[in-house]
Amino acid sequence: MSAGDKELFCATRRRFLASAAGATALTSVGVAAGTPSPAEAQAAAPTVAVAQTEAFRSEHQAGIVTFPIQHSTYFAAFDLVTAKRNDVAKLLQAWTLAASRMTAGDTAQPLGSGLTLAAMPDAKPNGDDDGSPDFSAMSSDTGEAIGMSPSRLTLTFGFGAGLFIKDGKDRYGLARQRPAAFVDMPKFVGDQMAETRTGGDLSVQACAEDPQVAFHAVRQLARIAEGVAQLRWVQCGYRPSSGERHLLGFSNGKGNPSMTDTAVMDKVVWVGSEGPAWMRGGTYLVTRRIRFAIEHWDHMPQAYQEQAVGEIKYSHTRSAASEDDEDNPSHLRIVTPDRFTMLRRSYSYNDGANIVAERWPPWRQGLEYDAGMFFICYQRDPRTGFINMFDKMAKYDAKLNQFWTHEGGGLFACPRGARDGEFIGQDLFKAR
Amino acid sequence: MSAGDKELFCATRRRFLASAAGATALTSVGVAAGTPSPAEAQAAAPTVAVAQTEAFRSEHQAGIVTFPIQHSTYFAAFDLVTAKRNDVAKLLQAWTLAASRMTAGDTAQPLGSGLTLAAMPDAKPNGDDDGSPDFSAMSSDTGEAIGMSPSRLTLTFGFGAGLFIKDGKDRYGLARQRPAAFVDMPKFVGDQMAETRTGGDLSVQACAEDPQVAFHAVRQLARIAEGVAQLRWVQCGYRPSSGERHLLGFSNGKGNPSMTDTAVMDKVVWVGSEGPAWMRGGTYLVTRRIRFAIEHWDHMPQAYQEQAVGEIKYSHTRSAASEDDEDNPSHLRIVTPDRFTMLRRSYSYNDGANIVAERWPPWRQGLEYDAGMFFICYQRDPRTGFINMFDKMAKYDAKLNQFWTHEGGGLFACPRGARDGEFIGQDLFKAR
Repeated sequence: MSAGDKELFCATRRRFLASAAGATALTSVGVAAGTPSPAEAQAAAPTVAVAQTEAFRSEHQAGIVTFPIQHSTYFAAFDLVTAKRNDVAKLLQAWTLAASRMTAGDTAQPLGSGLTLAAMPDAKPNGDDDGSPDFSAMSSDTGEAIGMSPSRLTLTFGFGAGLFIKDGKDRYGLARQRPAAFVDMPKFVGDQMAETRTGGDLSVQACAEDPQVAFHAVRQLARIAEGVAQLRWVQCGYRPSSGERHLLGFSNGKGNPSMTDTAVMDKVVWVGSEGPAWMRGGTYLVTRRIRFAIEHWDHMPQAYQEQAVGEIKYSHTRSAASEDDEDNPSHLRIVTPDRFTMLRRSYSYNDGANIVAERWPPWRQGLEYDAGMFFICYQRDPRTGFINMFDKMAKYDAKLNQFWTHEGGGLFACPRGARDGEFIGQDLFKAR
Repeated sequence: MSAGDKELFCATRRRFLASAAGATALTSVGVAAGTPSPAEAQAAAPTVAVAQTEAFRSEHQAGIVTFPIQHSTYFAAFDLVTAKRNDVAKLLQAWTLAASRMTAGDTAQPLGSGLTLAAMPDAKPNGDDDGSPDFSAMSSDTGEAIGMSPSRLTLTFGFGAGLFIKDGKDRYGLARQRPAAFVDMPKFVGDQMAETRTGGDLSVQACAEDPQVAFHAVRQLARIAEGVAQLRWVQCGYRPSSGERHLLGFSNGKGNPSMTDTAVMDKVVWVGSEGPAWMRGGTYLVTRRIRFAIEHWDHMPQAYQEQAVGEIKYSHTRSAASEDDEDNPSHLRIVTPDRFTMLRRSYSYNDGANIVAERWPPWRQGLEYDAGMFFICYQRDPRTGFINMFDKMAKYDAKLNQFWTHEGGGLFACPRGARDGEFIGQDLFKAR
């Protein structure tokens, strides 16, 4: 983080900071003096300067051990639709520049400038000669985040297997750079991974304190990518403003290694000398869209839920009864031994409800919540991380597996962060 | 708001207030002294007491002129599946009790109690004799909001036309109580209202500062309703933490009447002596799920966008050029004269993306954002409010109408608030 980044404070903050400042006002006024109405609290709010910026340029990519974890995410996977290696490199160059601007609270590019990869120095992947449209009159920014705080926006980029080899073809001459740890994701017991929600050649995870800021960032990156990469699937997610409960009502993220302990993160998250040069300081990302069968779960006796999870629901304490049952292990009993093989950074998702009709007795046909967990984890090696742990869960976490379905996701290699003047993944594209 | 409500402060606050308190710490330490890391700011956060409660019991229902508007909503429409008027009354009684508890930050019912309408005094709509399942072992609360702040939760209840008459049938003997203002919603030019996203006999709008708290509340109400009412459609929404821009990038909610001016709200929002007794102090709610054609919009020249809206995008100022064009009016020119006929309280929504294939030239087939506006307005009379204004928009707002589709929504009569000992809609069910 440069000194300049550290001192970057947002000048245009409105309600978010009024809320924070409202707390200040309440403290000084004192509770006994009466609670000001929200309108009064806003009016009394002093202007305070708060760092709302997470540095984009650093040794590791931001958005992985960034703490506290931001409250909103917008995740996008892209398919590359170009045949040219240089197009991909130029896209990453354009994305890096746009990300460094947006994470600082700025627009993706200067207002008034044309929005096309052709505007990048020596980049012409989308030039006039290939029939792509002329975007010179388009808005250079879609506008919905103008005037908003940077909201601790982070943008984390990843590479899917398809960047290295797709349908048996080495499209970009990168196949030999694929790390040994970057295996194809196996199919686990019970997996119901929909093609339309799975995979992708590139990934972008936007995290921010505000959902509009997160979406805005991906929207600009998708526009910049036009003609080179197109959206394959997206997923919104949120984390509750306090507490750590997922939508089954139990604790989430317990037993995570400490994100602020750099020695632990070096051991668990960051690729070291075992990886190829371009991947050192990077990490592997696994995401899973896990739909919860909420209506079914909500009909189960609480005692069953607690045995399945291995935790007392209302007190959050571990349940001794299920701990002792070797033959019928709880979720926590299965996963706890391996908990330090990955850093979990999951979000809940809530995409409303869909109409379903099932002949399962006897509960309900009709509208079913489309909500659950957007599971996210980062690890130094997916084989010893997610794959090892989830293989056990898929086989033995029998009580809980009935109540969730893994519908989509992906495995992505996230290279190290881009330092000044570099672009994300530069070492990979310079490797021969 | 009772004195007890006013003094209800949440004892279990975590990150939300740590964020507020972090601002306090920064103010006293001073920016020049260096920015504490987020972890340090959290560690230094003093415990402050902040009112996070909106009163449930009052003359008008909360969640309508509640200000500032909370950042999250979860809206649900229900179909009544009972033939008995008393079942509906008992459901509203149970919902009122649960709402008064949850808006105060409590569980829907005491932990450990059985979750069934049969637990309500003299209510047996879901009793043993009709074959409904025994829920006595079910968790009394699904748990995901335990330990969280009330987050300014409001729950606003409404009645759809189907409560009064459905398929020509007066199911509950309430047809003669239907107000004259509660007309059937006309079909407007361009409407593409999907049956599965439209209507409903009952509505619940949960608004809160936290999406998990809002969803939790509707989830409990849906569980309580089992056997009497079932979910028909739902919609999540959010408002950005600052600024007032919708996802087309222009300003949202400009020219709204003042929510804190009670004389104006009496004139615009609250039904007076013109309505039937049970509806006085209530209001009419119109919602519309308006999907934006974001990818198409983002390809339009900025000058076109500004002419369509009637506003300069980046500065938020009105555009004189389009104001002067009588024959080709801007959106703002069309809606501004009628702006004080309703109170708008809209949210943006972002449900990710869907796969579409259209033969529209020449832009893109593939993934399309499923995002836009969940339009919400409250008015004293929908005929002079939404219906009058939207009829003009549907016909004349031609430049913008190409870029959005009204996919669903509803019209609901929201009765006055429940005072101590009353339940929502009590006057209606006592009327004969």
